[in-house]
Amino acid sequence: MPVVKVTWYTGRTHQQKAELARAITEAVVRIGKTTAEHTQVVFEDVAKEDWATAGVLESDRK
Amino acid sequence: MPVVKVTWYTGRTHQQKAELARAITEAVVRIGKTTAEHTQVVFEDVAKEDWATAGVLESDRK
Amino acid sequence: MPVVKVTWYTGRTHQQKAELARAITEAVVRIGKTTAEHTQVVFEDVAKEDWATAGVLESDRK
Amino acid sequence: MPVVKVTWYTGRTHQQKAELARAITEAVVRIGKTTAEHTQVVFEDVAKEDWATAGVLESDRK
Amino acid sequence: MPVVKVTWYTGRTHQQKAELARAITEAVVRIGKTTAEHTQVVFEDVAKEDWATAGVLESDRK
Amino acid sequence: MPVVKVTWYTGRTHQQKAELARAITEAVVRIGKTTAEHTQVVFEDVAKEDWATAGVLESDRK
Repeated sequence: MPVVKVTWYTGRTHQQKAELARAITEAVVRIGKTTAEHTQVVFEDVAKEDWATAGVLESDRK
Repeated sequence: MPVVKVTWYTGRTHQQKAELARAITEAVVRIGKTTAEHTQVVFEDVAKEDWATAGVLESDRK
Repeated sequence: MPVVKVTWYTGRTHQQKAELARAITEAVVRIGKTTAEHTQVVFEDVAKEDWATAGVLESDRK
Repeated sequence: MPVVKVTWYTGRTHQQKAELARAITEAVVRIGKTTAEHTQVVFEDVAKEDWATAGVLESDRK
Repeated sequence: MPVVKVTWYTGRTHQQKAELARAITEAVVRIGKTTAEHTQVVFEDVAKEDWATAGVLESDRK
Repeated sequence: MPVVKVTWYTGRTHQQKAELARAITEAVVRIGKTTAEHTQVVFEDVAKEDWATAGVLESDRK
């Protein structure tokens, strides 16, 4: 029952998510010795207004 | 201070969330021996475009 | 595919977790209109040294 | 590589998030002995319809 | 700054985690158009006593 | 009801956590316009065997 949560910036396309979900699931099944049916991938898109590195929101960077 | 996070597909109504928050809180208090005031329930709705099982996004299933 | 994460203090028994997992699953299925097979409950026990309220770690309270 | 996730009600302004990201990063660097470049702060805004205390959704309180 | 959290049962080896971290990072970089340096993978091992499916803790299954 | 989760490497002392919980709470209250009683800080220590950057587990770096 692996659950893989991908937290990243908003902006990736449906196609990118579909491909990445497939690639991650394939890797988890092959390396983690589980089944695809038990593997879930969840995407959490975060706006640049909501993510800071080094104390600065990404949306405020020049 | 239990925090219970429910991550599921978007689409449940306000009424369903209200009922489930009440039922979960009742169970946590009764079984976990805590108080209702200290129990929080948070709902995280995930779009079907953002959740894959077996490597396929739910929104892509036929 | 609801995933319910219960984050609370360390110390609950196996019996309490078994009962609460059953009660939460029953409530999610009944109110959320899903199946038990798709419902997962995960417990995250947090030590009192790792949880602060009002700026004070629980393990430091008198 | 600290990651600090702030989960709270929707409604804080960009200015409040910018200030808080800066203050938290400063504290993590100073007290946790790490670098600002390795410190990330992520904000997760939760609607009052999605957060219950004592079994009642915040949006349902009088 | 993608952060990928893998939540699964305790028991995978260091070697499996090392391989999976590499495979996931490669996929995120290739498909998500980001850099390896900005990609983090975190493993959260959950004991079978702490994970229930269909209302039954995994450690209680026959 | 802000909940602040700090995810970082294992190894910080009790004293560091106590200080950081106090500093973060003070900042959340002052900037976020909430009360200390409603602010919770949770620490999640992650072993270097469980955290990879650029596809390499921290415990494997030379």
